[in-house]
Amino acid sequence: MANNSADKRVTLTDVAKLAGVSKQTVSRVINDSEHVTDETRIKVQQCIEVLGFRPSALARQLSSGRSYTIGVVSCGGLGYLVSGVAYVGMVRQADKMGYALLIKELTDFSPGSVRTMLDYLIERQVDGLIWAGPEMGDSHVWLNDFDLDSLPMPMVVVNARQRGKADTVAFDNFEAGRMATQHLLSLGRKRIGHISGPMSRWVAQLRVAGWQKALDEAGLPECKEYYAEGDWEPGTGGPGLRRLLELCPKLDAVFVGSDRMALGVLHEAHRLGLRVPEDLAVIGVDDAPESAFMIPPLSSMTQDTPAMAERALRLLVRRICERRGEPYPALCAQAEDPVMHHQLVLRESTLGKS
Amino acid sequence: MANNSADKRVTLTDVAKLAGVSKQTVSRVINDSEHVTDETRIKVQQCIEVLGFRPSALARQLSSGRSYTIGVVSCGGLGYLVSGVAYVGMVRQADKMGYALLIKELTDFSPGSVRTMLDYLIERQVDGLIWAGPEMGDSHVWLNDFDLDSLPMPMVVVNARQRGKADTVAFDNFEAGRMATQHLLSLGRKRIGHISGPMSRWVAQLRVAGWQKALDEAGLPECKEYYAEGDWEPGTGGPGLRRLLELCPKLDAVFVGSDRMALGVLHEAHRLGLRVPEDLAVIGVDDAPESAFMIPPLSSMTQDTPAMAERALRLLVRRICERRGEPYPALCAQAEDPVMHHQLVLRESTLGKS
Repeated sequence: MANNSADKRVTLTDVAKLAGVSKQTVSRVINDSEHVTDETRIKVQQCIEVLGFRPSALARQLSSGRSYTIGVVSCGGLGYLVSGVAYVGMVRQADKMGYALLIKELTDFSPGSVRTMLDYLIERQVDGLIWAGPEMGDSHVWLNDFDLDSLPMPMVVVNARQRGKADTVAFDNFEAGRMATQHLLSLGRKRIGHISGPMSRWVAQLRVAGWQKALDEAGLPECKEYYAEGDWEPGTGGPGLRRLLELCPKLDAVFVGSDRMALGVLHEAHRLGLRVPEDLAVIGVDDAPESAFMIPPLSSMTQDTPAMAERALRLLVRRICERRGEPYPALCAQAEDPVMHHQLVLRESTLGKS
Repeated sequence: MANNSADKRVTLTDVAKLAGVSKQTVSRVINDSEHVTDETRIKVQQCIEVLGFRPSALARQLSSGRSYTIGVVSCGGLGYLVSGVAYVGMVRQADKMGYALLIKELTDFSPGSVRTMLDYLIERQVDGLIWAGPEMGDSHVWLNDFDLDSLPMPMVVVNARQRGKADTVAFDNFEAGRMATQHLLSLGRKRIGHISGPMSRWVAQLRVAGWQKALDEAGLPECKEYYAEGDWEPGTGGPGLRRLLELCPKLDAVFVGSDRMALGVLHEAHRLGLRVPEDLAVIGVDDAPESAFMIPPLSSMTQDTPAMAERALRLLVRRICERRGEPYPALCAQAEDPVMHHQLVLRESTLGKS
């Protein structure tokens, strides 16, 4: 039990004084070193007990070179809710494997800032690093010519483009865009627009490319003109839909880059008197908890962000163990596909009433 | 620059050997101690540079008793999205004041588990503690007879009931329930039901009590029967509304404990052919980004959860500085009200079309 206030934290020196031995000797007893006589060991242990001395975890880390801490660098900015969900997944998975997370946020991605952040985490002696996206603009460019072997610990990159030899766990957002569009095509829709997330985002770029690919495959390249850029949030769904209708008044379907924007699209369609899906089929991405309860219920693509974060954690702990030649914890004993996949969830907004 | 791999991390011993001095002397140079001659200091510094030795942050923490790390214990379970949002707020605020967060999750609140968690964080020498809610069941009961002075660092409790002398930052959810109900009363509604979050949650209990209080004040105690319990999620909004309509077929308004459940209520009202707000006025809590785009747009109570988390961080850093007799960082120089308030945001679901 901790019953020492800040003012009177018992130190190694206190124990050494009371036991009449050197600090090194106390340290040897704590670390189970062999070079201590039984007599001294017992004396020191008694003094530790009498004083209520708590051997510092930091001190033990220093001697073992192991902190059971994982550094997480989150790229700041817009990914607010998503990174929140990812944090929760990471915290849980880390807990299960006996690690704590040391979380830092980065908003400036210049090589100097990245270097300062890496140095900070290296000094903290984290056992491994999670570089958490979302990738936006040049946030991950530093990785292009970075020597990963120069890091004293392994790193896993989450929710960003695969670069060089970096371990990366991410969703296949190209495939998501293609699948969503193929679903709309399978319904016989011919004028299929897209409202994307911000094009500074890698994820948004991929979903656009997947939509375009499906249109090309279907022989409908002209639809690639029916495009508007949003910001993931509900507020840009309505303006996005109005823009698409200007570009193509007979638009009959829209693939929306997030369910949150799709909510704005449904709201605007309702306001304009467009029937969903009779006049306009709508599909989003995320399968948010809200989506089944929109009016009408929204077709979407599931995206299990906490699962992505958890998988990244497990991969990192594998890498940590590999470097140290230690066996893996059971949770990360199975090799896992670093590419995560979305799945179609079909509801009224594309299928109509059943 | 870090260019030593794990296998060849340069240690204090390496520096000492090369400089031909003791480890203590190297340590004294690193810590700017006075008991070193200039000649020795220069020699050691040269060896540090030649070897690329990185003085360990952990080692410096050991000597300074300051880790610039804040331990965050999150009470697990259902508070998934909300705690995600709170994390993001905390990470940002901590960053601005030069602290890292060490995050741990707790799901078992027995005194033994709480003690183990506290000991873990004490050993990690965190400078302060955030005990982050949400409070559910007996999750915070351990605080009732806990001696806060026995902790070697200050603690701030977030999103939980005020207990004893514990610093606590939380929303006034009683007032939120009362205000939402008063708004429905101000519209002339007389049969006002409530769908609450899980009653194991302190926040849900308070919102129920605020709703009841407003009904009593308005002389409508019979409405207290029109009650259903949900789980915060959209899926329980519909069943909740159906239950209220069984209890009171002429129900004319409903205060819903979360905007997510209110989405389910709007969906069910639409399905049943009830006009909102003509037949049924609906108000939620959270003012989620989605709420303005529901059909119809939802009246709600803003709840700035990241702001609550940030305020808690600032209060904690004040307490850390107070204990150490240090000046506060500018960000936490102002004393702030630990009670956070919701605000009414009125939209079509109660006001109708303007």
